Amino acid sequence: MNFSMIRYTLGWLLLFESAFLALPIITGAIYGEGAAISFLITAVLSLALGLLLSLRRPKATELYAKEGFVIVAMSWIVMSLVGAVPLVMCGACGSFVDALFETVSGFTTTGASIFSAVEHLPRSVLMWRSFTHWIGGMGVLVFIMAFLPLSGGHNMHIMRAESPGPDVSKLVPKMKNTALILYAIYFALTLIQLVALLISGMSLFDALNTAFSTAGTGGFGFRNDSFASATTAQQVIVTVFMLIFSINFNSYYLILNRKIKDALNSEIKVFLLIVVCAVTVITVDTMARYDSIGEAINHASFTVASIISTTGFSTENFDLWPELSRTVLVLIMFVGACAGSTGGGIKVSRILILFKGMARELHTLLHPRQIKKITVDRKPVSHELIRSVNAYIGCYILIFVASLIVVSFDTGDLVTNFTAVTATINNIGPGLSAVGPSANYAFFSPLSKLVLIFDMLAGRLELFPMLILFSPMTYKKS
Amino acid sequence: MNFSMIRYTLGWLLLFESAFLALPIITGAIYGEGAAISFLITAVLSLALGLLLSLRRPKATELYAKEGFVIVAMSWIVMSLVGAVPLVMCGACGSFVDALFETVSGFTTTGASIFSAVEHLPRSVLMWRSFTHWIGGMGVLVFIMAFLPLSGGHNMHIMRAESPGPDVSKLVPKMKNTALILYAIYFALTLIQLVALLISGMSLFDALNTAFSTAGTGGFGFRNDSFASATTAQQVIVTVFMLIFSINFNSYYLILNRKIKDALNSEIKVFLLIVVCAVTVITVDTMARYDSIGEAINHASFTVASIISTTGFSTENFDLWPELSRTVLVLIMFVGACAGSTGGGIKVSRILILFKGMARELHTLLHPRQIKKITVDRKPVSHELIRSVNAYIGCYILIFVASLIVVSFDTGDLVTNFTAVTATINNIGPGLSAVGPSANYAFFSPLSKLVLIFDMLAGRLELFPMLILFSPMTYKKS
Repeated sequence: MNFSMIRYTLGWLLLFESAFLALPIITGAIYGEGAAISFLITAVLSLALGLLLSLRRPKATELYAKEGFVIVAMSWIVMSLVGAVPLVMCGACGSFVDALFETVSGFTTTGASIFSAVEHLPRSVLMWRSFTHWIGGMGVLVFIMAFLPLSGGHNMHIMRAESPGPDVSKLVPKMKNTALILYAIYFALTLIQLVALLISGMSLFDALNTAFSTAGTGGFGFRNDSFASATTAQQVIVTVFMLIFSINFNSYYLILNRKIKDALNSEIKVFLLIVVCAVTVITVDTMARYDSIGEAINHASFTVASIISTTGFSTENFDLWPELSRTVLVLIMFVGACAGSTGGGIKVSRILILFKGMARELHTLLHPRQIKKITVDRKPVSHELIRSVNAYIGCYILIFVASLIVVSFDTGDLVTNFTAVTATINNIGPGLSAVGPSANYAFFSPLSKLVLIFDMLAGRLELFPMLILFSPMTYKKS
Repeated sequence: MNFSMIRYTLGWLLLFESAFLALPIITGAIYGEGAAISFLITAVLSLALGLLLSLRRPKATELYAKEGFVIVAMSWIVMSLVGAVPLVMCGACGSFVDALFETVSGFTTTGASIFSAVEHLPRSVLMWRSFTHWIGGMGVLVFIMAFLPLSGGHNMHIMRAESPGPDVSKLVPKMKNTALILYAIYFALTLIQLVALLISGMSLFDALNTAFSTAGTGGFGFRNDSFASATTAQQVIVTVFMLIFSINFNSYYLILNRKIKDALNSEIKVFLLIVVCAVTVITVDTMARYDSIGEAINHASFTVASIISTTGFSTENFDLWPELSRTVLVLIMFVGACAGSTGGGIKVSRILILFKGMARELHTLLHPRQIKKITVDRKPVSHELIRSVNAYIGCYILIFVASLIVVSFDTGDLVTNFTAVTATINNIGPGLSAVGPSANYAFFSPLSKLVLIFDMLAGRLELFPMLILFSPMTYKKS
């Protein structure tokens, strides 16, 4: 294990985090809030510690797969620990576990909150919550690695561990340039949404918060009712951008290069098909509750986009919808967004590969001597990728079951416990029943909160980094 | 597709079924019930149709994998359709869908019932219900094939499709003899339980019903309260035998041959470990509700044995237990019994292979250049088996999700719908909430009942035969 590289990377991470903290400091200063002091102290401490750790460059800069996973998992934990400090210091959170829950929920773009109301919170805290979504959405380590004065192919391992989806493809020959292109697209799309929201009449503070939360597919809001009291135009803008940020960013690069046909790959087609089906079913199922069909379509599409993109905003308390609609929502909670987007969940491409593997297996049962290759978009899917998707599903079930058992020790009913785990491991935010869109996670015991914190991190980092960090196998000499 | 072999096998199946119907006819005759006539008419019709279909021996007797699956799936459907006839004819069931639900639930050893009370039913009907469990437990086709005057290796394909578990191993060189050994063990164990129950003071009728239902891990009872009013000794006997029938029958053959060490394979160890853990957790969780710790242990072990063996008997309304206990029960619903037993569920060995595959994948992530083989009991697991386990899980999720959506159209809550599908696809019987141990499945719409009938058959035949029967791919010329 290359410990000096881990130290060095964590050092740089802290330097970046102290820079990120500038935004809530400025917000607090503008609105004259005392909370700004808490953010300032944390930023200074983070800066000092970061300088200390990154002072000495490591001699050996090689990173193997193992170190890639460990660095990513540790970075996300350290980043969250530091990010939670100001929330306790300013008094917004009563305990450090609560502050950590909120910060992990932010960085992992989950949006599950322990606050029952947010409107009384300092604006600097609200800004920091939304900003953590934006930072976590694309992942920060790949960004740092692109700037670090290091040579060699470290980035690939980090990118594999931090980017969402079963496969990482290069857009351009150099990994570093691929990363920069993706960050540029992220930046540009966020800016476009910001402008659209400002035109719709939102204040700069509200628009910034909304754009950050939507871009990261996070879900932290600044109003107690999420988006229920926003104008219809604003709701539609958010719906559209939640879907935009659920689509593989590679496709936007292909569109910019006028390769429209390549951009519209089968994952996106399946994703859009699921969205259309879910919206149709829910619209029909809930129509009787609304004054017009337009209103029903608006609520259904906002909610479906919010859940499948794993954002977690709401315009309606969908926990009160009929059983069929609630079941459809629970199912799309698991599906999640496309690989290579900022959305969470199992990812459409994994589900696609799982079902293609299944069809292949049925074919083999019928014709034992024929060999059939699995293809996606006419390209063969490698054997390793299929295996890794299956292992992912296995790990997913394991973590899910273990979490469900621990959470069941608390009070609550089956639906609450089941959807609490679902909503955190898939980085959605609200579940149903006692963790529904009008409720919050404050009532869980500290142990359950720690388990859900683990689930959020595991979900955001696609399970393997967190499992590897805590596996004794990792530290054994081979 | 060798249609004349399908016709011929179905003919023999009907001949056997008419013989099986002798038991309820005799029962009805002893107790002087009018229902006996319904069973008699069905038996005669079944005999006539069977003779007609099996009259001409097919010229080509080869069976390919494809035909094996189709024959097994069709046989189980035909067997259930015929078995349902007397239930409507004698007036016990109001509609044919209800009768079919009850019969499929019997043959697939599910034990999910549409009757709210059973004590008023004719004894011939009660006997037929329990007897279908016993027939379905070991599967009837392998038995028939062992007696059919046909040459060649047809049995392997049929056995693969009808026997529970991911892998079928031969005990002795000839498949036919392997089948006969397994049936002999089944017979002997049922007889031992019957004698034990008679000694405990049960009447012959009650003891036969109980032994048939336990041996098939079915769950149909003859009292409205299942086993709540049985004596403690009787409850313990049933607990022990539910566990005995959940263990791979191959192990009993090995024990008879004094290969104790081989008999105690890792699947059984994991199975027993899960049982002990679940009983411990539930005992502690429910202790406060009972007068003594002995009583708590008795109820916990009976219920855990009932659920993990997928039998579905009850001594207690476990739907009223605390959340933790209910969650543990839902989790072991999915685990199910060992492969090669009469129990249902996903099977312990599949879960073992799934997790071993996962650990291997984590190892590969850490050490990309090392090659690691998956082994169970020190024997390497074939690549095909791992692939097929993964495909099984994929199919399982697909069928589960599709069923859940259809069932959600009915009234009912998430827990009811979720556990109804769980309890039928895993061949358990009772679920929680509106399908809990003191409730029944009568309230579902005919469409939902048909879906649950499909789930019971798919679960018992391990998914693939039912999927292949209804897949257009099967009938395409290749």
